[in-house]
Amino acid sequence: MLAGGLGGARFLHGVRALLGIEGGPGPTTEEPDGITVVGNTGDDLWLFGLKVCPDLDTIMYSLGGGLDEDRTWGRAAETFNAAEELRAYGAQPDWFGLGDRDIGTHLMRTQLLEAGYPLSAVTAALCQRWQPGVRLLPMTDDRVETHVVITDDQGRRAIHFQEWWVRLHAEVAAERFVMVGAEDATPGPGVVEAIMTADVVLLPPSNPVVSIGAIASVPGIATALRSTEAPVVGVSGLVSGAPVRGMADACLSAIGVEPRAGAVAVHYGARPAGFLDGWLVDLADAGEVDEVAAAGIACRAVPTMMTDHGAAAALVGKALDFAAELRSGQ
Amino acid sequence: MLAGGLGGARFLHGVRALLGIEGGPGPTTEEPDGITVVGNTGDDLWLFGLKVCPDLDTIMYSLGGGLDEDRTWGRAAETFNAAEELRAYGAQPDWFGLGDRDIGTHLMRTQLLEAGYPLSAVTAALCQRWQPGVRLLPMTDDRVETHVVITDDQGRRAIHFQEWWVRLHAEVAAERFVMVGAEDATPGPGVVEAIMTADVVLLPPSNPVVSIGAIASVPGIATALRSTEAPVVGVSGLVSGAPVRGMADACLSAIGVEPRAGAVAVHYGARPAGFLDGWLVDLADAGEVDEVAAAGIACRAVPTMMTDHGAAAALVGKALDFAAELRSGQ
Repeated sequence: MLAGGLGGARFLHGVRALLGIEGGPGPTTEEPDGITVVGNTGDDLWLFGLKVCPDLDTIMYSLGGGLDEDRTWGRAAETFNAAEELRAYGAQPDWFGLGDRDIGTHLMRTQLLEAGYPLSAVTAALCQRWQPGVRLLPMTDDRVETHVVITDDQGRRAIHFQEWWVRLHAEVAAERFVMVGAEDATPGPGVVEAIMTADVVLLPPSNPVVSIGAIASVPGIATALRSTEAPVVGVSGLVSGAPVRGMADACLSAIGVEPRAGAVAVHYGARPAGFLDGWLVDLADAGEVDEVAAAGIACRAVPTMMTDHGAAAALVGKALDFAAELRSGQ
Repeated sequence: MLAGGLGGARFLHGVRALLGIEGGPGPTTEEPDGITVVGNTGDDLWLFGLKVCPDLDTIMYSLGGGLDEDRTWGRAAETFNAAEELRAYGAQPDWFGLGDRDIGTHLMRTQLLEAGYPLSAVTAALCQRWQPGVRLLPMTDDRVETHVVITDDQGRRAIHFQEWWVRLHAEVAAERFVMVGAEDATPGPGVVEAIMTADVVLLPPSNPVVSIGAIASVPGIATALRSTEAPVVGVSGLVSGAPVRGMADACLSAIGVEPRAGAVAVHYGARPAGFLDGWLVDLADAGEVDEVAAAGIACRAVPTMMTDHGAAAALVGKALDFAAELRSGQ
């Protein structure tokens, strides 16, 4: 599975519920059966000398039972005292929600990175505590950062994705996304192997541009997605012409794609030129099935709202059944 | 004034109370009238990639109204959530009390240091927020670390002062103190000038070995203390043969000095070979006055217990009166 943040985490809760996995270390190189997650690191940033990986942490915290599921980011039982102090010192940036418990994770990660370990090894070390029941692999150990080209009163300029997303609430129009470093990035250890040897590859309802798009911006991952023998099935995160959550519409408009389930599938494209064999849209978007099918992508309308882990499991079940049909039909 | 941590802070509250200073930026190079504090940095440590300066922070927090005066270290209204997370990840060391608000300070300091500013400039920047009413100068911008030679089940070895003090509670005998880096350290900007142009130099009841001793281990500071025209007056932190607080006795035994007010004065020595013109002992130690006088140091017994800012101000008043007498008698 590829995954951004919360949408990926909720889908993964469904995968775990369906397969009866409650936690644990997830698969290993020696025992590869299980769920491998390729996480988005394009949102990562350095903040006050700390390496922050918002999407990896959302997955890790959520599956490990540590996410604030109401706020949908950061740690449960969180305090923000260090950030309050930084503000009192006049430190910038002051718009990123940096909780005290979260800082514990970032301090640990940064120390390990500065000791020379790659992000993949550091993520594995952090997951030893959280026991997410999946193997969480950063898409790359290289630095890839999603930047957003905007024009505001300071003129036309590129800013870090987090500044656009968190500080500007995606309200200033994105003219372009640039995944800085992606062209030269190598997929993280195990990523290509996991995709190439998978039984099925799932794209959860994560942001098609800055989550799935960022992961697929690493050339080796795009190649693996196009060439794996596993069926690749995605689930739309847009329903009735709007994102279920997040601001995918603001991202899609920047790349000239309508914020509709069908349009996103056409944007991903049919394999092997694109990334999809199958696409699940919500029942509300049944009218877009033919458009997707016309692009060479099998498409089906199902209930996609992950209102709880049970609903997520039902959705994952639909995706796996669909994948099995696609595989037998190949 | 030279200063360690809490003893120095309490004495400084007395200085401020006596002089009617309630806060503010303290003296500057352009307007040098006021209180300049030369702070101990020998206790400083790097912890999880953060630069921690316990003595500077105790002074800064206490004079700025942010110290937890009951616990006598760290920030008021503190939480310890980041540290709890670090423990959950199995991070070492786990024995240093690293509060969340405190981490805000350390993140700010570390960022500025890594941007290339010397500790003196960083301390000045932090003090812009706290407005301590004094100019707080680190003894040096160079790295000087107090290490303690001990013998335990791992054999004879040197450990960081904080490990001995905080983790071992100074219960393992210190064989020797080594101020690593002191020999080659240069006094921080303004330190020698402040001592050489002072009206009076005060040594508060800080630890004679690891606070005042660490500061004086910087050769340029020792030379300034010996050669300034200002009278140098110290106050004993030991009363009735024991430290009022802290574990100075465990430090003194390592350097072969009895834990008595008089013995500490003799250890400091009379100027210009030593550091003292005058020495104040507690009334309880009036019997040691002659011993100190015999070493060529003027000595007087006064009440030294700083039970509140008023008592501290009274003690400072005694020290300043004493200094004035010494100056007029020169």
